[in-house]
Amino acid sequence: MRAKIDKVDIQLINLLAKNSRLTYKELAEQLKTTRQRISRRLDKLEKMGVIKKYTIIPDFDRLGYVYVILGITLKPAAPVDEIIERLKDDQDIKIIERAIGSHNLVIHLVAPKDMKDIEKKIHEISKKIDGIDKMDITFITEIVKFEIL
Amino acid sequence: MRAKIDKVDIQLINLLAKNSRLTYKELAEQLKTTRQRISRRLDKLEKMGVIKKYTIIPDFDRLGYVYVILGITLKPAAPVDEIIERLKDDQDIKIIERAIGSHNLVIHLVAPKDMKDIEKKIHEISKKIDGIDKMDITFITEIVKFEIL
Repeated sequence: MRAKIDKVDIQLINLLAKNSRLTYKELAEQLKTTRQRISRRLDKLEKMGVIKKYTIIPDFDRLGYVYVILGITLKPAAPVDEIIERLKDDQDIKIIERAIGSHNLVIHLVAPKDMKDIEKKIHEISKKIDGIDKMDITFITEIVKFEIL
Repeated sequence: MRAKIDKVDIQLINLLAKNSRLTYKELAEQLKTTRQRISRRLDKLEKMGVIKKYTIIPDFDRLGYVYVILGITLKPAAPVDEIIERLKDDQDIKIIERAIGSHNLVIHLVAPKDMKDIEKKIHEISKKIDGIDKMDITFITEIVKFEIL
């Protein structure tokens, strides 16, 4: 049977989404429980895959990077799984999302600020995608708001 | 003068991007320095805004949410700043990015899985955006890969 996510789990996830560096002690205080119980809940949520990653949101611009989103529309019979397999290990591709709607595949690139290199990279990626119908290329210039939950 | 980001800062950022829950002790061991120095560097990077947030990446689907990306193309003279100001405090809008290229504004929505409510929400958002030329609506079905740096 699949483990359930309860109200306290949701509160825990919301707290960590706002600050993933909160200690067991701080989390326990805010949720009026013990460190041991927090630790057990986090173990559970990690094993279930409900928490996929603890990470940071950096200022890409200050680090010298460009953040590019490729919104890809595929032709109806395009082999999505194969395409993803081909792109997955590319170090410059940070995020790959399957989707429906305007785009079937959303790829996020983080690369040094060199437009020639970025053009080359995008060309290289598009060659790996069979059955591409349309690609929207969007350069993020500023993250105005960033929350997860 | 603007504080500089050095090689050790970059290593620190890369470690935290992979796991933002690493303790000062663990970070100090991996970077062969002291906890005090790690603490000072993190303070600096937070104050500089190079680290914008410590957060988690959850499985939105397991939490009962739909993750929608709105890629918005504005007409040339559209008042971007005003539009952002109008959208910023909306609780369902988690991420707002300014951009150039295919889209000028990228909005990420996280909302409960109810297509009628989502339709209403998207309609409500589009009414707040003057000079909208085109809106690409993409529903993320699976995050296949997620790295930050």
